[in-house]
Amino acid sequence: MEIILAGNAGYCFGVKRAVEIAGKVLKEHRRERIYSLGDIIHNPQVVKRLKNKGLKVVTDVDRIEPGSVVIVSAHGRSEEDIRKLEAKRCFVVNATCPYVKFPQNVIKKLSRENYFIILFGDKNHPEVIGLVSYSANSNIAVVDKSVKDFGFIKSSKVGILAQTTQSKEDFVDIVRRLVAGFRETRVFNTICDATKIRQDEAIKIAKEVDIMVVIGGKNSANTKRLYEISKEYCDKVIHIETEKELDRRSFAGVKKVGVTAGASTPDDIIRSVMETLKSL
Amino acid sequence: MEIILAGNAGYCFGVKRAVEIAGKVLKEHRRERIYSLGDIIHNPQVVKRLKNKGLKVVTDVDRIEPGSVVIVSAHGRSEEDIRKLEAKRCFVVNATCPYVKFPQNVIKKLSRENYFIILFGDKNHPEVIGLVSYSANSNIAVVDKSVKDFGFIKSSKVGILAQTTQSKEDFVDIVRRLVAGFRETRVFNTICDATKIRQDEAIKIAKEVDIMVVIGGKNSANTKRLYEISKEYCDKVIHIETEKELDRRSFAGVKKVGVTAGASTPDDIIRSVMETLKSL
Repeated sequence: MEIILAGNAGYCFGVKRAVEIAGKVLKEHRRERIYSLGDIIHNPQVVKRLKNKGLKVVTDVDRIEPGSVVIVSAHGRSEEDIRKLEAKRCFVVNATCPYVKFPQNVIKKLSRENYFIILFGDKNHPEVIGLVSYSANSNIAVVDKSVKDFGFIKSSKVGILAQTTQSKEDFVDIVRRLVAGFRETRVFNTICDATKIRQDEAIKIAKEVDIMVVIGGKNSANTKRLYEISKEYCDKVIHIETEKELDRRSFAGVKKVGVTAGASTPDDIIRSVMETLKSL
Repeated sequence: MEIILAGNAGYCFGVKRAVEIAGKVLKEHRRERIYSLGDIIHNPQVVKRLKNKGLKVVTDVDRIEPGSVVIVSAHGRSEEDIRKLEAKRCFVVNATCPYVKFPQNVIKKLSRENYFIILFGDKNHPEVIGLVSYSANSNIAVVDKSVKDFGFIKSSKVGILAQTTQSKEDFVDIVRRLVAGFRETRVFNTICDATKIRQDEAIKIAKEVDIMVVIGGKNSANTKRLYEISKEYCDKVIHIETEKELDRRSFAGVKKVGVTAGASTPDDIIRSVMETLKSL
């Protein structure tokens, strides 16, 4: 059985950075209470390891005790939460991905300059929830690729940007439909190239294998998208978090296996999956 | 023979305004030397009438005598030319269409804020020549719809706008190809709706007639485009400046005639064409 592993599987820049920051904080502040506001990255195995080292994960800022050390997750957080932590005299370590900080600053700027803001993304994703908070006024709408009509916008100046992990093709398609209707459209391409590169590689591999294995958190949006994209090009695709979910029966008669992993999947899990696959 | 005249044939807002300004200036300053810098509008018959009333048309600002009255044409002119006229103590009457002043101001602003500027238009058209001059630096490129590659742009910030009379579909298509490659793309929709409305109406009429008559200056870009667009939907299309060019033989066996006219075609010429057509 031939196994093809994607060259770009696993940790992206922002995830690697956030995990390293968390490791450093857990070491340096080991005598203090250390919280993370939301899962630092969307991988349950990595989060569990960090919890074993003493990290407390909470989603609600009000549950954090004053004076604690608090790590802000890679997806970023609302300005209000950061202000609350500062008011509680917490020591805030911001592990927000720099590629997420860019759209945060874009929204602040567009909001200050009175643009109506269109944010292309998933309104329930922590990154998007954080981003929306950087708009001081209510002139922001989160849209997905099904958006058809922009008649609800009562401004002639529109700014548009995207959640970092969205599809560039879908973003460009929304921009195309938007520009004809407004005097000024300010487009910020905030999509992280790592996502695009990973997705393109997954498509390439999915086309030539019998089964595609996508490794990553079941709560990871970019991993779920890798699964969906692979599905379009390969009949058999499985989404697993660890090698324990591999079932020998899925590989009966299989000649070629493709493997890719989401941006929050650690190298050692990818290695374990590879070894288990080789042993089948 | 049934004749369908487009509801939006003839003078647009900017042309009407420029011709009225010229008439007023020729009356109020009749004892002075009155120049126009370029054809006030692109219609030879109208320009001839204005010349008969004393207007001198020159293309080169250096040929204008100091202290003259000078009308700037509807298409606008370069900042340098305006400065030269002021240095010559000329009395400058600016008949630039307000819809052309908007892109002039956009280019000034983008240039000041260090954007690389893409201007979608015909580089030989007076409006475009004027517009380019509002970019203080050399960071501007005039492109047509055949543009494929933007690799020549060495900036992450791009501003794009269009000559007022270009096609909105083509503009949107260029924007679509542009946005994926740059961090920020600032799109100004500077296309005048009058052009689009006129073109859409021409298409609608061209589809249902045996012959289409397009009236307007042979030097008028928007008239030429009306001709080309009509050609796509009707086998027989003729472009005339006046009723004198109508040939009875073209209308043999014709049941339905469509008539439209460019933005610089005066009402009386349209009326004369209509009367001649009715008499055929």
